[in-house]
Amino acid sequence: MAKPTLIEELIQALRCLPGVGPRSAQRLAFHLLERDRAGGRRLATALAAAMEGVRRCSGCRTLSETEQCALCADPRRDGGKICVVESPADVLSMERATAYDGRYFVLHGRLSPLDGVRPVDLGLDVLERRLGEGRLGVAGTAGTGKAGGIEEVIVATGGTLEGAATAHYIADLARTAGCRVTRLAQGIPMGGDLEQLDAATLAQAMAGRREIP
Amino acid sequence: MAKPTLIEELIQALRCLPGVGPRSAQRLAFHLLERDRAGGRRLATALAAAMEGVRRCSGCRTLSETEQCALCADPRRDGGKICVVESPADVLSMERATAYDGRYFVLHGRLSPLDGVRPVDLGLDVLERRLGEGRLGVAGTAGTGKAGGIEEVIVATGGTLEGAATAHYIADLARTAGCRVTRLAQGIPMGGDLEQLDAATLAQAMAGRREIP
Repeated sequence: MAKPTLIEELIQALRCLPGVGPRSAQRLAFHLLERDRAGGRRLATALAAAMEGVRRCSGCRTLSETEQCALCADPRRDGGKICVVESPADVLSMERATAYDGRYFVLHGRLSPLDGVRPVDLGLDVLERRLGEGRLGVAGTAGTGKAGGIEEVIVATGGTLEGAATAHYIADLARTAGCRVTRLAQGIPMGGDLEQLDAATLAQAMAGRREIP
Repeated sequence: MAKPTLIEELIQALRCLPGVGPRSAQRLAFHLLERDRAGGRRLATALAAAMEGVRRCSGCRTLSETEQCALCADPRRDGGKICVVESPADVLSMERATAYDGRYFVLHGRLSPLDGVRPVDLGLDVLERRLGEGRLGVAGTAGTGKAGGIEEVIVATGGTLEGAATAHYIADLARTAGCRVTRLAQGIPMGGDLEQLDAATLAQAMAGRREIP
């Protein structure tokens, strides 16, 4: 009785955010209503615009508001390398952290037969075709960085069991297409404390040890 | 370059939520875009509607989408009692937890001269007038629960220093108007462990100890 409908609806709607339960939803709603109406209005507009306007890039499948994302449309990117990642956020992380100058392919998930996630759900049929054709992106725009098609497929799926299974599947595709396949190095993270590291990572770091020159 | 404008704007806009920094904003944005477009659209609509439609009740100053909130419009509520709280969320908490059947007055803050929050910013001039007139709410609708005006003012401000200062100020107003003034009992919370309780609460609980009948 005390909560008018609009407020109740806002509290309910805020629960679509991950990690937001009934209590935090109420706190967020009252924060916006009491202290930041301008922010709330801006958020409403940005949300509506993004939910309508953002789709998948026809080249790499990352989220984009244009037919092709900025990376796929950039002729300076090396079309001879393709980095396969699980999510659009991974593309951002790679771009922020590394000097990688090739192209991407975004899976939007990982293989998980038990959950009904098949290769086709991750666009792996599309990737297979691209690798076979030796070019990335849509006709005429991508693969322009280098002549001679895709030379290297960099598998950058996550360190989970499903990520590893997905990596295996992609490696098979790439080898069949005659591409070189690499994956990100695994080992001790920067600033990582051996004592706090899990056994699997430590074992991998030991197995992958390198000569100190 | 990798982030299209709509996504960047959404990430930026999500930071109006308290406790949401750049990383969580990105996580929330990608969650909605990747996994819950319907939820995102619903949230956009609910936000826009609430930011436009929710204002303050002309009676108790709580948030309401109507001129008068449901509580102020309810003739069964006892107009002889008024509970003064800091925020609309406090009204919800009281309604959920207690069988209080009187009316409310919402301050939307607490007195804080250093931050420039004066009595008039909390509507305390309105409260003073109401107490003087011996009725709550707007003319003709409220104060109908009982004849004879406001008998009791229940001060339910928070346990902070500023909350206590606000409580003192309200108590003075109420006494001047000839009303009885009470405040919520202070002491050990239910399930509270003595060992983990702060010294001030424990001291108050000791000072306010009661006879076991």
